[in-house]
Amino acid sequence: MSQTYALTLAYNGLKFSGFARQKDPAISTVQEILEQALATVLRLDTPPQTVCAGRTDAGVHALNQVVSFKLQTPTFNAEQCAQIIRSLNALTPLDITVKELRPAQSGFSARFDALSREYRYYIFNKPYPPTFMRDFAWHLPQNINTNTLKIATNYLLGEHDFRSFCTSASAPPEKNTIRTITSLELIEQDIMGEELLTIRIVGNAFLHSMVRIIVGTLAEIAVGKREAEEIPHILASATRETAGQTAPAHGLTLYHVEYPKKTFHTFSK
Amino acid sequence: MSQTYALTLAYNGLKFSGFARQKDPAISTVQEILEQALATVLRLDTPPQTVCAGRTDAGVHALNQVVSFKLQTPTFNAEQCAQIIRSLNALTPLDITVKELRPAQSGFSARFDALSREYRYYIFNKPYPPTFMRDFAWHLPQNINTNTLKIATNYLLGEHDFRSFCTSASAPPEKNTIRTITSLELIEQDIMGEELLTIRIVGNAFLHSMVRIIVGTLAEIAVGKREAEEIPHILASATRETAGQTAPAHGLTLYHVEYPKKTFHTFSK
Repeated sequence: MSQTYALTLAYNGLKFSGFARQKDPAISTVQEILEQALATVLRLDTPPQTVCAGRTDAGVHALNQVVSFKLQTPTFNAEQCAQIIRSLNALTPLDITVKELRPAQSGFSARFDALSREYRYYIFNKPYPPTFMRDFAWHLPQNINTNTLKIATNYLLGEHDFRSFCTSASAPPEKNTIRTITSLELIEQDIMGEELLTIRIVGNAFLHSMVRIIVGTLAEIAVGKREAEEIPHILASATRETAGQTAPAHGLTLYHVEYPKKTFHTFSK
Repeated sequence: MSQTYALTLAYNGLKFSGFARQKDPAISTVQEILEQALATVLRLDTPPQTVCAGRTDAGVHALNQVVSFKLQTPTFNAEQCAQIIRSLNALTPLDITVKELRPAQSGFSARFDALSREYRYYIFNKPYPPTFMRDFAWHLPQNINTNTLKIATNYLLGEHDFRSFCTSASAPPEKNTIRTITSLELIEQDIMGEELLTIRIVGNAFLHSMVRIIVGTLAEIAVGKREAEEIPHILASATRETAGQTAPAHGLTLYHVEYPKKTFHTFSK
């Protein structure tokens, strides 16, 4: 008897070396901490093997990271899931929060079943640095031209070969680097009284560092270091060096992951 | 020749023992740090004496604290003010940000000239704790009845003797404890994807711990430990013990301070 589960968690990524477990168990990763906590709470000899929707890099945050794993136990009911969440939150550091635990369809994979991922990148565009948003926003003090920025985002929308927008090491020549960006919005919003420029980006899947290289390139366009019209040439070149800098990790949050309807079991209330 | 200045600053209060300087200079306060930084940047032998709009307690944050001080120097122009801000931000810890420095009318006092103060108190009402808002929101996991809460806030609006809603030590019998709350709103808002219940409270002035005791009492009403109808009796009793707990410091932010028009010099652009 086995049951696949989907677990939703939030984390402040600043103190972690990313989501993915590393060979050296002394390196603090969200996956290592989560799997150990699951083993403790569920009294398992071997931690469950987890798969995540988006492997966030060191310093990147998640509001709704989704993780799948399989257990050789009867299916937990709503009260058991709630109790497991409480126990996990009591065990894990305060920078990691387990928000939801749901039985999922047999064979569910948080990675392969995801229909789309939404990331948000927060930019603080004032001469002085952000205070409340310091952990979560990139401080870009230069004057920003949002009109140029808007033109640049339009070039990135849709299906493209994003080879120029990922780390070279992660993209050997045989790798398919075609991805689709379905939405790329600029949102001016007030967060706790601090005015932020939020770049909201939704796509089917993302290459390694793709959002951060897109944001870094957009930032160079926004401050006038590059022209928006360079984007089609950068895409066509399929060479990392043609794109801009990689924006800092701490401005980025994995915001939401979309799955097909009926993927998760909904407990009746 | 002298000139009074108004300085606006934000701080994350978690690591400070409040705004006000303490006798022991080893105790880290915002005022001590700010005055020392001003002395360094302005090359003064004695730090300027600063007066703040609202003396925040240990752990309380400020988005727009206003501080006044007088300097025996010719009036700084816009570029000089901008340079002083940059130098102050380079000197102070990252948890303190100087946002604005403006010449003010002669004799201006950030405390006595304030027309009103606005505070915001953030509550996170989920079974699991907040992640991004962990430094800034009180985690209240119990079910909250916002209808009852709304009734309770209406009893507090207007001019009342708030003696029951301040620390006894701060209110000797001869102290005038009558204050006016001009606005008390409940706002449900999404902050970085976390759903918060924000209590927005505006008044002419506040007694020591007044906002936190109001919020603590409202929280007891919201979770059903007290009735909204107790508020008039608590006010009438003029006794601290009749009110509820003091809500934790870290949920509170001094949000805005209002001054008469023409108080500050506006630099033409």
